Amino acid sequence: MAGFTIEKVAAASGASKVTIYKLWPSRGTLAMEGYFASVERELRFPDTGDVEADLRTQLHAFVALLHRSEAGRAISELIGEAQTDPALREAYLRFYSRPRRDLAVARLRTGMREGQLRTDLDCESVVDQLWGACYHRLLLPDEPLDTAFADQLVDNLFRGISTNQDRSGTTAGLAGAGPAVVGRVGTQGPPSPTGSSRSTTTAPRSTEDSLPLTVEDHTRRS
Amino acid sequence: MAGFTIEKVAAASGASKVTIYKLWPSRGTLAMEGYFASVERELRFPDTGDVEADLRTQLHAFVALLHRSEAGRAISELIGEAQTDPALREAYLRFYSRPRRDLAVARLRTGMREGQLRTDLDCESVVDQLWGACYHRLLLPDEPLDTAFADQLVDNLFRGISTNQDRSGTTAGLAGAGPAVVGRVGTQGPPSPTGSSRSTTTAPRSTEDSLPLTVEDHTRRS
Repeated sequence: MAGFTIEKVAAASGASKVTIYKLWPSRGTLAMEGYFASVERELRFPDTGDVEADLRTQLHAFVALLHRSEAGRAISELIGEAQTDPALREAYLRFYSRPRRDLAVARLRTGMREGQLRTDLDCESVVDQLWGACYHRLLLPDEPLDTAFADQLVDNLFRGISTNQDRSGTTAGLAGAGPAVVGRVGTQGPPSPTGSSRSTTTAPRSTEDSLPLTVEDHTRRS
Repeated sequence: MAGFTIEKVAAASGASKVTIYKLWPSRGTLAMEGYFASVERELRFPDTGDVEADLRTQLHAFVALLHRSEAGRAISELIGEAQTDPALREAYLRFYSRPRRDLAVARLRTGMREGQLRTDLDCESVVDQLWGACYHRLLLPDEPLDTAFADQLVDNLFRGISTNQDRSGTTAGLAGAGPAVVGRVGTQGPPSPTGSSRSTTTAPRSTEDSLPLTVEDHTRRS
């Protein structure tokens, strides 16, 4: 990954560096430079051979980085500005977003090759359900963006959200059922007790490194 | 849900309607008004008794709405502007984002009560992994935002992305394994054949209503 710098954005968008620096308050710009400088080091994808543990580790680092000083705010303002500035958007996608996606997809593909992830998995969609979900909370902070949230994202994808998986090796509810309306499935009965007992087998949560980012934070910092 | 209107945003943010209309090009503003007017009708959450089918139906409607005329662009510009305008952000969260989340969570909770979803599920995180993932592709269009993508999001959550679910009723990989580094799990062997054969049991994809939204679209429209 080549890296995202103000210089490259200026060159790609045809805007002067002065113009780009003017777009953000100086603190935000400095934070953004610091953010991109530290991204490659801190957001490296580990490969311990356990794709679930590795995704968890990397997402924790990602959330921590977004919370560091003004980094999260600088990133949200950059993405915000990109919505009305096509050249900036293209530069952001080319120099930052796409290369980061590719690194994530590469790690997921290793997990597929090693038999840990479904072989028919669409890896790009998983990127949107892990990092994209974090960006969603960064940009629209209805709920906290913290390490507990990152763990929930991983849990949902690795355990599945359905009770169907708890009872059999196949996702019975999917077999032959299209997106069309199907009959009420109340015959499935009450939630399986395994569903609730399994909640105790998930990875232990460290509450002390929970880093909530709330609307209040955003407002206070503005 | 009370609804999101320019009038309410103006009242909540203390800005004049004129100021708010100035923020977006007139076509975008009109599209935004049209978008919010049609949201409650078109993005209603169905309850056929099958939570998976209902989420799929609603997400298809959501993706279609974002593609209609200039609606997606107006929404992305509104979220973009909210990154540097705290009052607008607060109004957006209060009048639109939060009420929409609550409706989604209510439908998910019904699915939990009816035994279709894990009882220990954090419903808020599912909102970020379905609608939040769509917003991510809208704002950072590295990959297409279409109905096939919406189906992948649902598949990933309902089937789980791991091969562990294919082999047993428990997510063995999770039991006792924290986020710490664990040993290489190469002993799991090659991908389970059930993993690939099950791909044929997913809901049939309708390609004709696939609505890709690409970087080029964004750039062309700007």
